[in-house]
Amino acid sequence: MKAIAAFVLAASAAALATPAMAQFAKPEDAVKYRQSALSVMGTHFGRLGAMANGKAPFDAKAAADSAAVVETLSKLPWAAFGEGTDKVGNTKALPAVWKEPAKFKDASEKMIAAVAKLNAATKAGTLDSLKGAFGPAGGTCKGCHDDFKAK
Amino acid sequence: MKAIAAFVLAASAAALATPAMAQFAKPEDAVKYRQSALSVMGTHFGRLGAMANGKAPFDAKAAADSAAVVETLSKLPWAAFGEGTDKVGNTKALPAVWKEPAKFKDASEKMIAAVAKLNAATKAGTLDSLKGAFGPAGGTCKGCHDDFKAK
Repeated sequence: MKAIAAFVLAASAAALATPAMAQFAKPEDAVKYRQSALSVMGTHFGRLGAMANGKAPFDAKAAADSAAVVETLSKLPWAAFGEGTDKVGNTKALPAVWKEPAKFKDASEKMIAAVAKLNAATKAGTLDSLKGAFGPAGGTCKGCHDDFKAK
Repeated sequence: MKAIAAFVLAASAAALATPAMAQFAKPEDAVKYRQSALSVMGTHFGRLGAMANGKAPFDAKAAADSAAVVETLSKLPWAAFGEGTDKVGNTKALPAVWKEPAKFKDASEKMIAAVAKLNAATKAGTLDSLKGAFGPAGGTCKGCHDDFKAK
């Protein structure tokens, strides 16, 4: 049990003392976190896109599973764009993220709302329901990338 | 709409034609995916640990949110340990992952089950319920890391 306790303490060390404070010990941790969340989200969004665009056979369960992952992950990256995380590591986030925070927040909220609709749509279990919700969701991804992510 | 269609096609390009086939176009994509999923999971597991171990104040909503993220992510990495992804990039996965697949599968299933219990426990909204489920979940992480991940 001692080894487990040490392991668990190590896992906890990254978290700061107060949830109300920044949730990352180092700016690099925040960048890694937001990139990781967006990357996993992108993989599952890509799978949905492959089905929506006829590049892969429609699989109702796989679509629903991926859409649920996308909805869960859609809420995560934004808390990791805090002050001091603008010129860290290999970030592709543009200065506009911090210069136009209201616009960035609005873009993130549009995406969150669109992928929630996408998740709800995939529960219908038909390709048409996926197709109907996928385009608008993809549009919110693109809109935010255009304005806030380096090419 | 043309730009959105192109964006959506680009997002889909990473997905292969048949879901039954490998879900990643390149071994590097699989490694990035599994590392990203495990990294985000680790961040949220660390936040739960900080609360369970008294390093951070208990916040019932934050705990429930993190536990839900952990449960969702716990199911993802395993499909990305396919053949040919054993010596790719900066992977820390040990050869045992591919030499002892049944043991690796069992370890992953134990973790998935333990974090599902952890997620259910946090819904009770008390520090005691978090503490009771956190240790066993941490034990499944450590057990798998000991056997299947390089130090």
